[in-house]
Amino acid sequence: RFGYFGKDKPEVVKLLLCNLSGGLTDGQIYISANGEEMVSINTRDQAGIDMLKKEGVKVILLEKDPIAKALADKLSKRMSCRILQDVDDKLKKVQELMEKKGLEWKEVAYLGNDEPDVKCLELAGLSAVPMDAPTVAHNHAKYICHNAAGHGAVREFAEHILLLKKKAKSQMEQDRICRNTF
Amino acid sequence: RFGYFGKDKPEVVKLLLCNLSGGLTDGQIYISANGEEMVSINTRDQAGIDMLKKEGVKVILLEKDPIAKALADKLSKRMSCRILQDVDDKLKKVQELMEKKGLEWKEVAYLGNDEPDVKCLELAGLSAVPMDAPTVAHNHAKYICHNAAGHGAVREFAEHILLLKKKAKSQMEQDRICRNTF
Amino acid sequence: RFGYFGKDKPEVVKLLLCNLSGGLTDGQIYISANGEEMVSINTRDQAGIDMLKKEGVKVILLEKDPIAKALADKLSKRMSCRILQDVDDKLKKVQELMEKKGLEWKEVAYLGNDEPDVKCLELAGLSAVPMDAPTVAHNHAKYICHNAAGHGAVREFAEHILLLKKKAKSQMEQDRICRNTF
Amino acid sequence: RFGYFGKDKPEVVKLLLCNLSGGLTDGQIYISANGEEMVSINTRDQAGIDMLKKEGVKVILLEKDPIAKALADKLSKRMSCRILQDVDDKLKKVQELMEKKGLEWKEVAYLGNDEPDVKCLELAGLSAVPMDAPTVAHNHAKYICHNAAGHGAVREFAEHILLLKKKAKSQMEQDRICRNTF
Repeated sequence: RFGYFGKDKPEVVKLLLCNLSGGLTDGQIYISANGEEMVSINTRDQAGIDMLKKEGVKVILLEKDPIAKALADKLSKRMSCRILQDVDDKLKKVQELMEKKGLEWKEVAYLGNDEPDVKCLELAGLSAVPMDAPTVAHNHAKYICHNAAGHGAVREFAEHILLLKKKAKSQMEQDRICRNTF
Repeated sequence: RFGYFGKDKPEVVKLLLCNLSGGLTDGQIYISANGEEMVSINTRDQAGIDMLKKEGVKVILLEKDPIAKALADKLSKRMSCRILQDVDDKLKKVQELMEKKGLEWKEVAYLGNDEPDVKCLELAGLSAVPMDAPTVAHNHAKYICHNAAGHGAVREFAEHILLLKKKAKSQMEQDRICRNTF
Repeated sequence: RFGYFGKDKPEVVKLLLCNLSGGLTDGQIYISANGEEMVSINTRDQAGIDMLKKEGVKVILLEKDPIAKALADKLSKRMSCRILQDVDDKLKKVQELMEKKGLEWKEVAYLGNDEPDVKCLELAGLSAVPMDAPTVAHNHAKYICHNAAGHGAVREFAEHILLLKKKAKSQMEQDRICRNTF
Repeated sequence: RFGYFGKDKPEVVKLLLCNLSGGLTDGQIYISANGEEMVSINTRDQAGIDMLKKEGVKVILLEKDPIAKALADKLSKRMSCRILQDVDDKLKKVQELMEKKGLEWKEVAYLGNDEPDVKCLELAGLSAVPMDAPTVAHNHAKYICHNAAGHGAVREFAEHILLLKKKAKSQMEQDRICRNTF
């Protein structure tokens, strides 16, 4: 109970992987009479992503389907983060990313919302689903947001991540003091 | 109570008929200043339709009004299912479809949302209405979704159908074992 | 208490006046980056208007602001009813309409949603506000809808009007029987 | 307790500063496949702004990001009020405005919704946040709206401001009578 002694890396999240559709958006696809599609995001979630980046947490958006180029560019620019499209096998993709960046699961946070996210929800150090996600995703997440997808879930999870990060840091600090003192 | 002995077809749904407007969509029609219309669907419902097709349940969308061609194409491609437009008399249309496919009512699931759906809601083996459907439709459905139209009702009904399908199959399996054993 | 004896006209609604913005729509105005505006209506409310017309109740939509021509045409065609734009003084406009059609207040139903509707809400034989209307309108309506504007309030009020119409008719029928019998 | 004697200015609001995104709008940004953005406002909130102006309260909208010109023009015209874009430091901007207009904090009302608004929420004579604002903003507002951003919060705050203004005026009136009588 005297805490962290530097043998393991602190359980502090360095990367948030987040579903675009049904995570950052509410999953609603608007389709006009001429077949053009539209989605929506919330500035509250955008602020959440900004908060994470300010504290050194990288954010990457995942999307199963391909996205129109202009839309992807706009979203990517607005959120200032990368979007990985056409992600068929989420687990495989996330493992590739982790290897490339030298990250372990406990350093990864994951916001998913449906069956294809189940394995990542289980493996990630922190994981969450929006309030309105299907039961199958709820059952495997470590944190259930009070907010719905596309309407604050990302912001809420960002605050949760930063709170835990702060706690872990203050614990490390305290442990160092303890180690030096006694 | 020793279950199914092969005299009747198992009560397993082979076809889902689903209202487009007010079933797959929330019934909201967006109209721009230049008169262009737009509707919206949810990726959760799209995932529900995918789940059904993976388990061999065909899905057909019904729409009372005519739909702009580009919109119909986009919806049809996104959901990978047929859309029947301009359906004035739903019962008649459904009976035609059933005859062509050699289906009985107990093999048909129906998701409706208003007065013109009442007869199909009563006759179909399984039937459902979204939470926010008018009372007249609620009164004749076998299942009332917890989710609203266009925001998860189709996904919820799909899970309900697949659960019953699984139960029916396991019952058939068990009956075969019973028949072989005793 | 032996009911209606033909001296007064029966209190049966012949005309529904309904606010477009905040009555038939939810009051939400979507504005694109190039300044184009968009509104939305629900097919449930459209079905409510159809029900009224089938039972001989005329429906007219009122709008304080001017509306883009293509949008007004589309709405008018979809709802198959007239839209009066630029209506500054609602009471005056409604009285003009009533005079032209030879109607009394008890034959008029009114769905309003804000301060400029207060007098009409008080005078009309039947009047209603959507659940989410400001308090000032709630305080003067005879019926408070359970549904919000643009999401079923018109449909709900239409059902309420038709129920009362049916009751009034059956009362008249019964009174005629009474008169003939005794 | 004999009230107001003219030594201080009455605590009556002369200016409402209101966040555009997440205050007047719900923070939802719609993005089409070709990258065009869209936002939405509610006519109820528009009516609230009209009410304030009729009672002599000026309204200015604040926005952190730059806005497309056509959109800004449309919003500005619809709401008949100025929009200040690209506002990085809200406190600084508000203080500039106050100096130019010779206003004190007690004459300013502020509707904010997130962390960058905290100081203004604390300093303004009256301040509010929409129901769905993040906790950090809730904690520093003097009034929490029952309505969500973009769906009536501005209207609700406007009514609150006008009620207090009316109270303050009637208090001043009463004080004058008291002073003249005794």
